Amino acid sequence: LQVAISTGGAAPVLARRLRQRLETELDESLSALTDVLARERARIRWRFPHPGRRRRFFERLLDGEWPQQLRRGDVNANATFESALQSSDPSRCLGEVTLVGAGSGDPGLLTLKALRALQDADVIVHDRLVGPAILELARRDAECIDVGKRVGEDHDATQARIHELLLAHARAGHRVVRLHGGDPLVFGRGGEELAFLRAHAVAHAVVPGITAALACAAATGVPLTQRGLSRSVTLLAARGGENSQPPHWHALAAPNQTLAVYMGTGELANVTRELLAAGRGADTPFALVENGSLPNQRVVTGALADLPRLARAHDVRAPALLLIGEVAVHAGRVARTERCSNGPPRVLSEAA
Amino acid sequence: LQVAISTGGAAPVLARRLRQRLETELDESLSALTDVLARERARIRWRFPHPGRRRRFFERLLDGEWPQQLRRGDVNANATFESALQSSDPSRCLGEVTLVGAGSGDPGLLTLKALRALQDADVIVHDRLVGPAILELARRDAECIDVGKRVGEDHDATQARIHELLLAHARAGHRVVRLHGGDPLVFGRGGEELAFLRAHAVAHAVVPGITAALACAAATGVPLTQRGLSRSVTLLAARGGENSQPPHWHALAAPNQTLAVYMGTGELANVTRELLAAGRGADTPFALVENGSLPNQRVVTGALADLPRLARAHDVRAPALLLIGEVAVHAGRVARTERCSNGPPRVLSEAA
Repeated sequence: LQVAISTGGAAPVLARRLRQRLETELDESLSALTDVLARERARIRWRFPHPGRRRRFFERLLDGEWPQQLRRGDVNANATFESALQSSDPSRCLGEVTLVGAGSGDPGLLTLKALRALQDADVIVHDRLVGPAILELARRDAECIDVGKRVGEDHDATQARIHELLLAHARAGHRVVRLHGGDPLVFGRGGEELAFLRAHAVAHAVVPGITAALACAAATGVPLTQRGLSRSVTLLAARGGENSQPPHWHALAAPNQTLAVYMGTGELANVTRELLAAGRGADTPFALVENGSLPNQRVVTGALADLPRLARAHDVRAPALLLIGEVAVHAGRVARTERCSNGPPRVLSEAA
Repeated sequence: LQVAISTGGAAPVLARRLRQRLETELDESLSALTDVLARERARIRWRFPHPGRRRRFFERLLDGEWPQQLRRGDVNANATFESALQSSDPSRCLGEVTLVGAGSGDPGLLTLKALRALQDADVIVHDRLVGPAILELARRDAECIDVGKRVGEDHDATQARIHELLLAHARAGHRVVRLHGGDPLVFGRGGEELAFLRAHAVAHAVVPGITAALACAAATGVPLTQRGLSRSVTLLAARGGENSQPPHWHALAAPNQTLAVYMGTGELANVTRELLAAGRGADTPFALVENGSLPNQRVVTGALADLPRLARAHDVRAPALLLIGEVAVHAGRVARTERCSNGPPRVLSEAA
């Protein structure tokens, strides 16, 4: 295997970065891997004469345990290779659906698996909230379908449309990614999609994502749990759907816990009133994080009793996450500095 | 910019993957970027005659907004470049500490930012639980320091030792990564580390990680919330530290919510007894996930009243995450199939 990178001397750092990335992700086992594939070339071609089938065989092999086994010098590497070569029946290719969490909007918070799933996808079925910076990471020839709610359509109709899309594309043999903002299994309808895929015997998998509570905690320096301040964190949707049970406000109002309220910008007065009525202290700190983890992040902090007033005063808009609890007193003190700083750390973004 | 990749014909798929990865992550703006750096070469050398300083300048520029501005054709790109060239005083370089979440153990669940932080780190201060597959992603010349608890050392002494390490390396001008299992701000002592770094005016940042609840939900197909079944999910540590408040069992026992219990393998009988005593139904489903998201994952499912017995019968050991709630009825039905499958989806790993 040979990789040559040149910037014509203009940016050796850039060339080194690219090289480093390739090296780090794929490392020295690559040569061993290439050697085996070169040696077995004739057998592979004989087994999979069709180029498309052969490509899928390579992908399966490279995505599986084989590269890691080679890297570790595992004695099973050979058996894994043989089994991949023998077992796969090239006569049929079925599609599959992977539910993928896109995280909070910052493309850097995608997981490596999510990136891989995006790059392998033939079709990407995504929420309106998933931004272009993330969709840009898909393969250029992938079909991207925005399945945001349409005017006059109710949520159940939207969801039924999504299910049919997933099924149709999987049955057409495509690799489908269902891309959710945040995590697919937290306040998305990923659970319903999984149930639907199971019921229709469609192959599926789930790649988790950095949900807003984690992203906003990291971006504002609020520990979701901390010894002496909070032993648990509850993620709650401010608005339930129709027929949903009301939240257990009394439980949520107990001290020394953290509450992360999703989709709450329209419900701030209600959430505050319920928590205060159930006994949460008026001076409990909160941090309201607008566009958490994005370059235009804003953080409003204060005491619970003042939450609705402060949110109005600062005109906080969706998407915003609300953190309530003793730990929120730490909000807004994450000091991002330039790499090489001038004198004392220069704070580029001081939240709040 | 020129990148040439060859496998000597042995594995064109591999070559295409590498090319695709480079293209997708860095895209066509790379050429524009290289052109600017080539044009400005003399000025950059004049400003930063020292190669190390020059390297840091390039890194700062490439890590900042400039590449994205160039890509978008943003008119501010030029100003950003000039400001980077002018503003940074090359006379001093301070260190910095980034708290990074390593996720649940599967290296594929690292975020892109976490990978970048690992690759940029001079020093990596990591928990014992963070596996070699993740540490392998660090730069080869990075110093890795295992700060697991030592025999006879109490937790506070361990933490104090970690703080001193972080401070010493940051003050020596190093880029330090403090690598936590899961997410740094969920049941780690990341909050205390942040407070310490702030108090000592050390530049810092936080990169979130896929915490066990998200990883195990994805790996077992249990939605943490679902319309009609659960409107909230609470992450709870089974064991508090000394002086910690007991959990609000009554609150946690209410129906139609999900409970994710961390570090609970030694506390299963206790958790079960408390929840049942507080009124949670004996038939509430649970899923106990051992080594969640790892190749050796096991899932034990059943009704809450049978939890301690079933866990003993299956000899479940740490690390394990316990999911309790109506949603857990879905556990263990994630069907991972081979990419190109033979007849009906062939389930390779059926949990439980």
